Amino acid sequence: MSYKASTFKDIQAIAQNALKKVEDKGGFKNVVCVACGGTHGTFYPLEYFLRAESNIAVYSMNAAEFSSNPLKCVGNNSLVLAGSLSGGTKEVLEAIKVAKEKGAIVYALTGVYDSKIEKEADFTSFYLPEEPFNTVDTQIQFQCLVMANELVHAIEENYDKYDSMNDGFAKISGITTKAIKKIEKRAKEFGQEYKDEPLIYTIASGASEFVAYMQSICMFMEMEWIHSSSINSAEYFHGPFEVTDPDTPFMFFMSAGKTRKLDERAYNFLRRYGEKIILIDAAELGLNTINDDVVTYFNPLLLYPVGLVYALGIAEAKQHPFFNRRYMGHVEY
Amino acid sequence: MSYKASTFKDIQAIAQNALKKVEDKGGFKNVVCVACGGTHGTFYPLEYFLRAESNIAVYSMNAAEFSSNPLKCVGNNSLVLAGSLSGGTKEVLEAIKVAKEKGAIVYALTGVYDSKIEKEADFTSFYLPEEPFNTVDTQIQFQCLVMANELVHAIEENYDKYDSMNDGFAKISGITTKAIKKIEKRAKEFGQEYKDEPLIYTIASGASEFVAYMQSICMFMEMEWIHSSSINSAEYFHGPFEVTDPDTPFMFFMSAGKTRKLDERAYNFLRRYGEKIILIDAAELGLNTINDDVVTYFNPLLLYPVGLVYALGIAEAKQHPFFNRRYMGHVEY
Repeated sequence: MSYKASTFKDIQAIAQNALKKVEDKGGFKNVVCVACGGTHGTFYPLEYFLRAESNIAVYSMNAAEFSSNPLKCVGNNSLVLAGSLSGGTKEVLEAIKVAKEKGAIVYALTGVYDSKIEKEADFTSFYLPEEPFNTVDTQIQFQCLVMANELVHAIEENYDKYDSMNDGFAKISGITTKAIKKIEKRAKEFGQEYKDEPLIYTIASGASEFVAYMQSICMFMEMEWIHSSSINSAEYFHGPFEVTDPDTPFMFFMSAGKTRKLDERAYNFLRRYGEKIILIDAAELGLNTINDDVVTYFNPLLLYPVGLVYALGIAEAKQHPFFNRRYMGHVEY
Repeated sequence: MSYKASTFKDIQAIAQNALKKVEDKGGFKNVVCVACGGTHGTFYPLEYFLRAESNIAVYSMNAAEFSSNPLKCVGNNSLVLAGSLSGGTKEVLEAIKVAKEKGAIVYALTGVYDSKIEKEADFTSFYLPEEPFNTVDTQIQFQCLVMANELVHAIEENYDKYDSMNDGFAKISGITTKAIKKIEKRAKEFGQEYKDEPLIYTIASGASEFVAYMQSICMFMEMEWIHSSSINSAEYFHGPFEVTDPDTPFMFFMSAGKTRKLDERAYNFLRRYGEKIILIDAAELGLNTINDDVVTYFNPLLLYPVGLVYALGIAEAKQHPFFNRRYMGHVEY
């Protein structure tokens, strides 16, 4: 069975219809995102954007955490975004049930047609797993950011970045395609050089924090069984930096835009006291062709697929395919 | 110079006065916490409590992240909590400046009298560094939770946990004193057994996520130069669990209350496939003498100092004192 991702226009329409439905019900006040693991991470670019550009309250939680002690604000004023690639993640289905009982409108994002999550949700859009890596506009984090731009455009007076964001959405797949060509050889070299490392830290700032989290928990820990932790570039100086030494690898996702100075400070320190630093720089990879006023928000859309290509470099060098698991699919839990 | 921590009544008065000041200015709508590293972590119990028990919007950010792209909601409706043990953390001072320019009222929490942060803030309370470990009520996370209880009591109609929370505040130091006696020997044994481990993961759920974060970035990475990452118990099954094996240590902070079932699921899995599991169980350590309706919120107040005693166990076994640093205080950054 072949899947098609929802289009840009599909997402715009869902955003408008979902907003109307919440407004009719109780007045739109907040967005709450529920998912697990990597999918939980993919909501962060939307969360970061809404907090900076709007007064809409926004939270993102692991779905099981949400169900165990739900946010009081979830109710008739809420749009709940629920993500599940398989469409059947049981913690997410439970969280949807809790949210609906409280009166929320639910918008599901999934990779599978006719899945359980689609049956439970008021609205659904479809994204694709990550191959080929450069089709940014079929990915969940892209869809979420398109939706967030629509919501802010509809809600906030004086919001002046709507067209700039849409211009960025039109450009990002092209930028990413070029970037991936540019780093393919680097990613293979990275794989050869780092394939025997027991641990690789990841580091990033701003909206790219999600990329560092994904790279750690999905690409390194889950897929390649490499120990890892994601560190915020500004938090680095308040504890984590004391583990820096010439033997410890750090994969550094450097953002363009507002948080670049936080990254540069950490990167300059790492260069003085570390030796195993893998730099992935959004500016060097062409992100600055997106307008200055919004470039900050596009970092994770570029850096995530680039990180995936680096992970593929290590998977090939280790001869440890991405989908090898010791527990998932093999044991009960 | 000897310091005294602010009292319970001091904090209650600050909460009431700060609330009134924001209400007079623009109407109280949100709480935004800014700090760095461990202090940033200490706001999490307040954040978790306010989200579950109130409609007050609440966010916590690294202070430099905040200044680089401030939340749009920060302004005349905001109470900004700013934390700095030294009272002079430059990122926090910058964040206070940004927040005040936008019209926010600032409540500082610090460990030092007459520090820079006190001069900039509208309100200040004083907490003490963590020794002796059992004086929970002189710690920043305790003060924040007392303040949060006051805010919710003042703001939310039908809030019925105010007395129960206050009863918990009265009990928590006693519970912690007993717990620390109970685990002192275990902590020394832990130190001997784990002193040569290059990496120790930490894991927790709910309000205790802050404890896992602190234990990782401050106690293990910063103080003891041990690699680490903190994992949410429910996120564990969506990626991180694939690194589980008999050689990898996990320090498990098990909570009493609403998220215990998330912890138990992860702990039971770890027991099957891991061998180096250090269990620190809030229920076994007496937390359930706090009322059922609020016990969830007290986990981090108990588990944090207990984790610190375990860290001391490893510091003594390694003969690596807590305040050894290679970078902080030694090099420019």
